[in-house]
Amino acid sequence: MRYIRLLIEYAGTNYHGWQSQKSGGTIQDVLYDSLFSITGEQGKVIGASRTDAGVHALGQVAVFETRSQLSPPVFMRALNAKLPPDIRILAADETDRDFHPRYRAIHKSYFYLISNTARRSAFLSSYMWTTGAALDLARMREAAAFVLGQHDFSSFRASGCGAKTTTRTVSFLEIARSEEISFMTAIFEGNFIRISIEANAFLRHMVRNIVGTLVEVGRGKLSPESFRDILSSCDRTAAGPTAPAQGLFLDKITY
Amino acid sequence: MRYIRLLIEYAGTNYHGWQSQKSGGTIQDVLYDSLFSITGEQGKVIGASRTDAGVHALGQVAVFETRSQLSPPVFMRALNAKLPPDIRILAADETDRDFHPRYRAIHKSYFYLISNTARRSAFLSSYMWTTGAALDLARMREAAAFVLGQHDFSSFRASGCGAKTTTRTVSFLEIARSEEISFMTAIFEGNFIRISIEANAFLRHMVRNIVGTLVEVGRGKLSPESFRDILSSCDRTAAGPTAPAQGLFLDKITY
Repeated sequence: MRYIRLLIEYAGTNYHGWQSQKSGGTIQDVLYDSLFSITGEQGKVIGASRTDAGVHALGQVAVFETRSQLSPPVFMRALNAKLPPDIRILAADETDRDFHPRYRAIHKSYFYLISNTARRSAFLSSYMWTTGAALDLARMREAAAFVLGQHDFSSFRASGCGAKTTTRTVSFLEIARSEEISFMTAIFEGNFIRISIEANAFLRHMVRNIVGTLVEVGRGKLSPESFRDILSSCDRTAAGPTAPAQGLFLDKITY
Repeated sequence: MRYIRLLIEYAGTNYHGWQSQKSGGTIQDVLYDSLFSITGEQGKVIGASRTDAGVHALGQVAVFETRSQLSPPVFMRALNAKLPPDIRILAADETDRDFHPRYRAIHKSYFYLISNTARRSAFLSSYMWTTGAALDLARMREAAAFVLGQHDFSSFRASGCGAKTTTRTVSFLEIARSEEISFMTAIFEGNFIRISIEANAFLRHMVRNIVGTLVEVGRGKLSPESFRDILSSCDRTAAGPTAPAQGLFLDKITY
């Protein structure tokens, strides 16, 4: 048996998330079907990160097993011919059976995009959260600093999260602002915020819950200190709302 | 009766084009329904340009008639609240009954985006035509020069085009290349081509047929001189294939 590792980019807009479901329509299902049509095998496909419905990826990693003798570049070309245009294989190589894309990950990084204007763009709204009122970035950065390091992130965990432990280590968190975004050759002026976060692993909805709570701080509804208290309370009900899925991008997984 | 003019941006991916159809699903239908839910009136909506299914707009112009006393800014806000996120009203003002968005247009400009690489992007493929082999831009520019000025464009007209006259005046045509496109905060390296064209008016599929034929020149299948002969032949069957809809953007209409 051979093990092929894939680096995958997708726009999550049209899918029910990464993880396979009986009703289908997930990215893993589509990938599985494409692999089956190439190899005729019903082998396992394992992904590194179970992105939610609507969440995008620039660097998802997955592994599948096969008895086929096709080379990784040939698999890549064959998959890109079969897959829909919003799911693309960026790279493929051969690995071994000990490589598990989730358990072997050392770091994962995500970023979250916010358009901090009233005006939504017809082209960008599937890729960002449009928040009306002006956010106070200084306050948000003050609150975000409390997230760095090792913490019990129960407060920012989704109710259905099945992780056995809730301690995670956040190694990087940055809040950057930009006054324009260029999309193709058109320049969109506005007020865009990118929140980048890296950790050894994430609980379910952890990034979206942190972002949703940071936005409450930016709106003046929570103080940076109450953000710290929410984190230390380990109480999900204390935190702010979950930021919408469409602003979230799985950026990179480091092995 | 009052007449309100709208400047409209849309991603055409999910629609059957601008022009209303019995089966619905067009941008004009969606706009009409949103206006009806605001005013309760079944008034006319007239657009400047009948963009095809999948074609995008940064600056479509439309006019509707109403007995409502709502101000243009209130209409804009109400419409943006009703319309789906991929159709946005950018501006609204009051005009008079003599203003017809199509007949009053002095110039229209479009641009067409090509990704001249084998690799398609999950995020960009709804907004450009991915052409594999490297295109020769010098040849394409040589051919494109023949398009400038007043010509009978019958060769680049769609078979179902109902225009009474086929003479149009192209006032601008530029072919530009870029080695990267930034989309949000990610930079996509590649080989991108933007073909911009302005004319007093366009025949149906005229831009897409000119682009499709220019690409044949860029691929070396046609010479610049044969492009000129195709134009002067006034014979649609002589021209190259129609470029796919998703690369085309209605940019601006000048009154």
